[in-house]
Amino acid sequence: MATVKLIEYGAASAEVRAVFDDIMATRKTDRVNNFWKALANHPPTLRRTWESVKEVMAPGALDPLTKELVYLAVSASNGCDYCIASHTASARKQGMTNEMLGELLAVVGMANETNRLADGYQVEIDEAFRGTG
Amino acid sequence: MATVKLIEYGAASAEVRAVFDDIMATRKTDRVNNFWKALANHPPTLRRTWESVKEVMAPGALDPLTKELVYLAVSASNGCDYCIASHTASARKQGMTNEMLGELLAVVGMANETNRLADGYQVEIDEAFRGTG
Amino acid sequence: MATVKLIEYGAASAEVRAVFDDIMATRKTDRVNNFWKALANHPPTLRRTWESVKEVMAPGALDPLTKELVYLAVSASNGCDYCIASHTASARKQGMTNEMLGELLAVVGMANETNRLADGYQVEIDEAFRGTG
Amino acid sequence: MATVKLIEYGAASAEVRAVFDDIMATRKTDRVNNFWKALANHPPTLRRTWESVKEVMAPGALDPLTKELVYLAVSASNGCDYCIASHTASARKQGMTNEMLGELLAVVGMANETNRLADGYQVEIDEAFRGTG
Amino acid sequence: MATVKLIEYGAASAEVRAVFDDIMATRKTDRVNNFWKALANHPPTLRRTWESVKEVMAPGALDPLTKELVYLAVSASNGCDYCIASHTASARKQGMTNEMLGELLAVVGMANETNRLADGYQVEIDEAFRGTG
Amino acid sequence: MATVKLIEYGAASAEVRAVFDDIMATRKTDRVNNFWKALANHPPTLRRTWESVKEVMAPGALDPLTKELVYLAVSASNGCDYCIASHTASARKQGMTNEMLGELLAVVGMANETNRLADGYQVEIDEAFRGTG
Repeated sequence: MATVKLIEYGAASAEVRAVFDDIMATRKTDRVNNFWKALANHPPTLRRTWESVKEVMAPGALDPLTKELVYLAVSASNGCDYCIASHTASARKQGMTNEMLGELLAVVGMANETNRLADGYQVEIDEAFRGTG
Repeated sequence: MATVKLIEYGAASAEVRAVFDDIMATRKTDRVNNFWKALANHPPTLRRTWESVKEVMAPGALDPLTKELVYLAVSASNGCDYCIASHTASARKQGMTNEMLGELLAVVGMANETNRLADGYQVEIDEAFRGTG
Repeated sequence: MATVKLIEYGAASAEVRAVFDDIMATRKTDRVNNFWKALANHPPTLRRTWESVKEVMAPGALDPLTKELVYLAVSASNGCDYCIASHTASARKQGMTNEMLGELLAVVGMANETNRLADGYQVEIDEAFRGTG
Repeated sequence: MATVKLIEYGAASAEVRAVFDDIMATRKTDRVNNFWKALANHPPTLRRTWESVKEVMAPGALDPLTKELVYLAVSASNGCDYCIASHTASARKQGMTNEMLGELLAVVGMANETNRLADGYQVEIDEAFRGTG
Repeated sequence: MATVKLIEYGAASAEVRAVFDDIMATRKTDRVNNFWKALANHPPTLRRTWESVKEVMAPGALDPLTKELVYLAVSASNGCDYCIASHTASARKQGMTNEMLGELLAVVGMANETNRLADGYQVEIDEAFRGTG
Repeated sequence: MATVKLIEYGAASAEVRAVFDDIMATRKTDRVNNFWKALANHPPTLRRTWESVKEVMAPGALDPLTKELVYLAVSASNGCDYCIASHTASARKQGMTNEMLGELLAVVGMANETNRLADGYQVEIDEAFRGTG
């Protein structure tokens, strides 16, 4: 249960409603997720976070499905239940199949395993990897 | 500096050399990374890890570049220096541009931010996200 | 559901009761949280953890509200549900308003985002930051 | 060593220079940290991140020193070397003493310890902590 | 609630059943945990993960109880609820007492505390610890 | 490079020297690690942390080697370079062989992999694992 009240549209200030309206228009839905209703307790964070997510997730050099897969991968790796649930749903909307989810989590699991092996042995970075910038 | 000796090809057992040979053949290179030279201290882990990585990173429902991007995203999120360096290099080999890297890390950063906001407010999962299986 | 029985006051040993008594006296309450009832399964950990928390959270160069905010920030960043719930409650008791919670979590989110960006690009530390000790 | 080139002012585009100028003006310094020089490889991330940090870290219900302490606490908890170094320096500028740093890290350490104890025993949240919103 | 359907034995393919059979035979039980039923949505991950776990957890230079304690310690440190619940049960089967669990979590808590203190102060590694390989 | 001065024995207060003396006596060595020299900047944290570590790592239901292995496992999983280096050295002193280290890190890697798979699929906890307390 959230540690703040979820702010519903009907009870929201004009400032919050404007963000909710933009979320629903951008996502072509008539529903606002609990995440945004919680953030509405602090309107500057609601606005800034929505604008940032909107900008970051827009199509660019990476397509929207790839971005959703990466978002889900990070959320799974961090063990954020809310974000895993919401971004699994978003990724499915963007076309993620069960097969793709299976491969995605396999990579996430593998990366977590080898991250700890590399750290655990304190492996020094190969010269060949340095200065790739 | 690694907490174990890095096992060079010349000093490796036949079992280790067989894995090193397969790594170089699969990756079409004549170099074995320090990571594998460290794992060679425990041959069963070397063999199992290599076979797992090889299987998981092979083309499937997700293409190799997408898999490398996800691997790098998780490694950046976990702060594993070695893995960030090595998978930035691998992703570039698979075609990652600076523009793609910029967008990738923007998604990683955003996911980490919203993961903590969702956890911090203890937002309950929307009914709409449940049972998406 | 806890993986151990919660030890209630009535069923507790004298050693455990003494810690429970000190918790209630120090916090001016007649309730002991589930956290301490779980730790009571291992009395040395109960005693040591309580004494440490009591010492660390006492007023000093930082005031108790600031300490609670930091405790909550770390718990939110780590995604520990129990600790987020209990330290949100403690911070409110110390005077944290919704506005302060909003700003706190905004900083926590931002720090998590930039932590991953700095790690993701493997940014080297500026000379100016070194040797600040 | 960074996985991208650090963009120096002299080599930066007008868009990047505008952000660098605002950073230096806001912070009353003639130096831009390596973090921003790395982000300059992806100007939209540079601009968005700087604007977000500027907004989030401005004085509000929490004062600037408290915000820096929280930023440092999260960075220490995440083990981000760059961010620990840079935010230790920023916090000192805002007035953090060695005594305050000592107390801050003591709270960070304690929170990490009890987060794992609460998770490790899977302690259920007390009714008294629910619905504090 | 899982984001995929749990695959029950009766509804499983021959490939999945073969893994389920091996799990039940190896563990001398007639029950397959939800974890494996979820992984069954991606049979290559089911097979590879089971074979890896089976190999890694077999008796070797470390005995099975020590391995279960380490598995539980990492799961508690990562805050993975499912894994904490399942590996607490497995460790108890291998002989873990409440006293041992108490000491184990005390070490996990302490390690998390000192990890953050060492990172928080950016302590440089002693010469004496280098090159222990 | 540490963000505080390392306090050497010669420059230490009587309070700090007393802790340093106890560390050297308990560990039968004439050297104090950098970690303690950094903590010496905040004597209450130095004293409390040392007393806690001393108590937690003493022989009990778990032997000292098992405790060191768990400490190293958590440190590797958290990616704390200092702690990995120092606890690899301590574990070797307690008798850890390369073979044991290999098996230990294999379990750490595997636990990290399956933790993320269980979280990533949001697997619900089996009834059989509940109420094991």
